[in-house]
Amino acid sequence: MAFEKVKRSENYSEWYNNLVKNADLAEHSAVKGCMVIKPYGYAIWEKMQRQLDDMFKETGHVNAYFPLFVPKSLFEKEEKNAEGFAKECAVVTHYRLKANPDKPGHLMADPDSKLEEELIVRPTSEAIIWNTYKNWIQSYRDLPILINQWANVVRWEMRTRLFLRTAEFLWQEGHTAHATKEEALVEARKMLEVYAEFAETFMAVPVIKGVKTENERFAGADDTYCIEGMMQDGKALQMGTSHFLGQNFAKAFDVKFQSKEGKLEYVWATSWGVSTRLMGALIMTHSDDEGLVLPPKLAPIHVVIVPVYRSDEDLETIKLAMQPLSAELKAAGLTVKFDDRDTYKPGYKFAEWELKGVPVRLAVGMRDLESGSVEVARRDTKEKFAVPMGDLRARILTLMDEIQQNLFDRAAKYREEKTQEVNNWDEFLEVINVKEGFAIAHWDGTGETEEKIKELTKATIRCIPLERGEEAGVCVYSGKPSAGRVVFAKAY
Amino acid sequence: MAFEKVKRSENYSEWYNNLVKNADLAEHSAVKGCMVIKPYGYAIWEKMQRQLDDMFKETGHVNAYFPLFVPKSLFEKEEKNAEGFAKECAVVTHYRLKANPDKPGHLMADPDSKLEEELIVRPTSEAIIWNTYKNWIQSYRDLPILINQWANVVRWEMRTRLFLRTAEFLWQEGHTAHATKEEALVEARKMLEVYAEFAETFMAVPVIKGVKTENERFAGADDTYCIEGMMQDGKALQMGTSHFLGQNFAKAFDVKFQSKEGKLEYVWATSWGVSTRLMGALIMTHSDDEGLVLPPKLAPIHVVIVPVYRSDEDLETIKLAMQPLSAELKAAGLTVKFDDRDTYKPGYKFAEWELKGVPVRLAVGMRDLESGSVEVARRDTKEKFAVPMGDLRARILTLMDEIQQNLFDRAAKYREEKTQEVNNWDEFLEVINVKEGFAIAHWDGTGETEEKIKELTKATIRCIPLERGEEAGVCVYSGKPSAGRVVFAKAY
Repeated sequence: MAFEKVKRSENYSEWYNNLVKNADLAEHSAVKGCMVIKPYGYAIWEKMQRQLDDMFKETGHVNAYFPLFVPKSLFEKEEKNAEGFAKECAVVTHYRLKANPDKPGHLMADPDSKLEEELIVRPTSEAIIWNTYKNWIQSYRDLPILINQWANVVRWEMRTRLFLRTAEFLWQEGHTAHATKEEALVEARKMLEVYAEFAETFMAVPVIKGVKTENERFAGADDTYCIEGMMQDGKALQMGTSHFLGQNFAKAFDVKFQSKEGKLEYVWATSWGVSTRLMGALIMTHSDDEGLVLPPKLAPIHVVIVPVYRSDEDLETIKLAMQPLSAELKAAGLTVKFDDRDTYKPGYKFAEWELKGVPVRLAVGMRDLESGSVEVARRDTKEKFAVPMGDLRARILTLMDEIQQNLFDRAAKYREEKTQEVNNWDEFLEVINVKEGFAIAHWDGTGETEEKIKELTKATIRCIPLERGEEAGVCVYSGKPSAGRVVFAKAY
Repeated sequence: MAFEKVKRSENYSEWYNNLVKNADLAEHSAVKGCMVIKPYGYAIWEKMQRQLDDMFKETGHVNAYFPLFVPKSLFEKEEKNAEGFAKECAVVTHYRLKANPDKPGHLMADPDSKLEEELIVRPTSEAIIWNTYKNWIQSYRDLPILINQWANVVRWEMRTRLFLRTAEFLWQEGHTAHATKEEALVEARKMLEVYAEFAETFMAVPVIKGVKTENERFAGADDTYCIEGMMQDGKALQMGTSHFLGQNFAKAFDVKFQSKEGKLEYVWATSWGVSTRLMGALIMTHSDDEGLVLPPKLAPIHVVIVPVYRSDEDLETIKLAMQPLSAELKAAGLTVKFDDRDTYKPGYKFAEWELKGVPVRLAVGMRDLESGSVEVARRDTKEKFAVPMGDLRARILTLMDEIQQNLFDRAAKYREEKTQEVNNWDEFLEVINVKEGFAIAHWDGTGETEEKIKELTKATIRCIPLERGEEAGVCVYSGKPSAGRVVFAKAY
């Protein structure tokens, strides 16, 4: 392949950037911090979207669409939320351009079109949505509202990385309204489970489910639940969050309902989201020095067939011979590509499809047809083996499950190796700085200690795991009493 | 129903606004000109999206995503395009908010965050996309590029109407790049055919395919193809456009490729789009004074079953008795709703599902179960008839096809009645002002005459039909020679 290869062991960050570019997933655009998601990358995102959307609908949610802009006066109503996002907001101030009298051929914002009130490009939609819900909710009969939105949002980031942190990104944001605190809490936890199931079953990425500390909470939430994955450099990546918003937005936007008992009460809320950041998690969890490795459940192409031929006649023979298999696999729900480009040699094609992470590759020549056996290569382990023509369909279908499972197992094993319970500051530093992984440690529960540890090591508390055992102990840093262990790691 | 009904014959425009609101399709938001698409409206849009997306993919297109913002310097590169959209552009000038020192608790755009270069919120994406294609295209081997994008766009409209004309709207925009003029022309025409097929086969809206006059062309196009539908007030609605962009954007962005013959040539382009405006067309073509009427192919719910019961026991019996039918219809691809809400009476439910345009309604009581026959009501004709339980599945499936076809036929018949060939100015005025329909008339081919007619009658040339016969004549207004007839109408 005519592209520069970077090894993970040499420079993980450069390896990532290089892979995203070479596998045709995304690239930087002319707009600072905004990316172009290229067709191959977008095809993976579409698979994620479709699956998540089905899961949201199965759990009773419906989609809707709310405006891109938030008037400043609404944006600032929930103070903590406004404060949390104010520093990264794109602001629309004018609604018209006109010819620039000083620069022929150029345009300028027309001063006469200055808006009376600035519009914020949504960094998240709680404000505009709760201002809408206000008119939809009068009685307990109007609840719950279970709505999701697929949208673009903008958070002005100074240091961006493709998929992981971009000024504009694509996401879904669920916004629900409930009559009781209990129901809202159940919803927030339910969606966390949906995200965890999606991450583990479809992305093949094992995740830790937990709750954020106060410092790391979503601005405006009473509690933020999260799923955290471990990348191949031992760093954590927050893959999804589900917020219990209490009555904060209901109070800010004055959203009350009449309860069954006839009392006027504030509505309870949740919001939850995952974004194109998941693409980053997918890439960094499974891929290797040859390129992308995709779990079959999210691969746009499952099987590529590369013909090895000398003459056009041979190519036709091979194509014809493989058609029944392609049809069978297609009927079983797989996408099969027969790569008959005559502008590239088989070796180039092999490398290209490896780079693009196609789970299974077949190489078929005239001799294979004669011998009745075809070479199958699996992307995850790079194993190659011959399979009799008659067994191909069944073997490939099994392989899809095997590869999906192997990717998950491999990632889980890696995470296990890189995760360690630590009981004192030296052990903590060893795991964070030398071993470079997750340190499961006691913490005294204060924001001060959390900040201090971050300052000293760059490690943050990724979450307080939901499934942690009861265990009294002392904080690894302060030596003060601790009620249980939390997960520390450096993070994206 | 507890909503105010407006008759089409009394006030068509108010009827429309009322229907959009009462059928829970969309509403105005706190952002001037921007709408909230409510879950029921969005469910219809999702059906449209899914179908169009399948059709785009079948014709070889792939999806991708490009930035929301366009730097001003790129926006202004293609002069005609920039000029055409400059007056309706939302402009981002700052990227941060800060506490307003003069107004405690309020925010303001931070003057220190003023952007060096303003960003335009995309009104359409040719500029940002062609600036990207520049880097993707070197040789004829890189062509064609066949990309579509699903996105939101913003055009600052002063007078807005839900779905028909909003400041922000959702759409898809195809942007293709080709080696030859012929290929680009074939593409532009092919996508027009896709749009026409979608409109007629799925929306059940008959359309006229044509080409726009120079006055009505997309800013930056060499030719704009369009499909035009007729609404129930006789006005035309432009439902989709496909543009042959020539080499205009390639020249503005300097996009050249090396041809097979080794020559450097400018690339040829098309772009094509349909938007949430189609929702307006769907509503206005089929609906009646009772509410929405939906073609089965785009209905989120195909069949609603309303139980008529006195006791909870009866309700359970009816529910149980109807379960096999629901399962069978679901297996056949239909969505069935069993409306067991105990907060409303059957009469209310009938009216509500009529309002929401569900194609088929069943009313089932205990006596129906005993007699073995159920009342079926079809939404389009409001006919009711009894169907033996054993025939229900088959009858309902046939009904779906019948209703789909009937809606198309009814709309086609209406359009035919309201369309007339006219041969002089009096006849023209009669059709446009009294009959209120489409006037098929000779026109001298000049922009001046077109403008004059618009000024006098508000009628515009909707298109020069692709399938018009050769016929020499004289212009209805100027009396000058004309090469053929064009379609005049008042339009949305």
